[in-house]
Amino acid sequence: MTTSQLLTRIDHVGIAVRDLEASIAFYASTFGLQLVGGAPEDVPEQGVREAMLYLTEGPAGASYVQLLEPLSEDTPVGKFLATRGEGIHHIAYGVADVAAAIGQLEAVGMRLVDERPRHGSMNSTIAFLHPKGIGGVLTELVQAAGS
Amino acid sequence: MTTSQLLTRIDHVGIAVRDLEASIAFYASTFGLQLVGGAPEDVPEQGVREAMLYLTEGPAGASYVQLLEPLSEDTPVGKFLATRGEGIHHIAYGVADVAAAIGQLEAVGMRLVDERPRHGSMNSTIAFLHPKGIGGVLTELVQAAGS
Repeated sequence: MTTSQLLTRIDHVGIAVRDLEASIAFYASTFGLQLVGGAPEDVPEQGVREAMLYLTEGPAGASYVQLLEPLSEDTPVGKFLATRGEGIHHIAYGVADVAAAIGQLEAVGMRLVDERPRHGSMNSTIAFLHPKGIGGVLTELVQAAGS
Repeated sequence: MTTSQLLTRIDHVGIAVRDLEASIAFYASTFGLQLVGGAPEDVPEQGVREAMLYLTEGPAGASYVQLLEPLSEDTPVGKFLATRGEGIHHIAYGVADVAAAIGQLEAVGMRLVDERPRHGSMNSTIAFLHPKGIGGVLTELVQAAGS
């Protein structure tokens, strides 16, 4: 269906952690990764407290490691930790236009988590696709702020 | 310990799949991602047949999606599929010098899977770090060919 490249980069990989502050300190001291924005951010609508660690910036945009601590046990990330333990939770790809992308994907039968774009980290616009349609990979599309 | 940024980018995310050809076709038709190198590659020492799908190239190097089909059930990826099913298997970060990086990490107590750098996809040099030391995240370091 698509012949042009819909996914332009890896925006971030989301990692579920039990202790956000300890994980931030670990990634800083071990790998030299620094927090973007200066402080973790609560995102109640996703049930997480999150931190973005900067990796690189390229022509298609920046890439990050995203650390996710659940705000409570009965959130998606809380349930993920209870079932699987700490580890990689999802992958987020950059797209030029989230609304256009989910429209295009829905038209070819992709199962969406978000029927409409919503607010994401650092003023981005995002939408999640259902892992059942993508070989078990919870996939997020990210349109960076200002793009 | 480290203050400089050891991890320079996301080189790739490794995704465990049951059917490599079907997965390549899915990522091409749905997301417009194209194979690098033109054909999947057998990597017997890792027990996988793998395909690299191109995303982007930046100042710190290129990024890919890596699809991994096990060569048999008694391989690490074969066991991962049996236990967890299809999904994200590992994250690989770019580093300037793999040998220096694993020396530095071992000196601060990081548990290594590979005590020495070895051959990776597309003539890269790689080393895996043990997930137990990194919040359940199987982490690979990649020094791209020629860097």
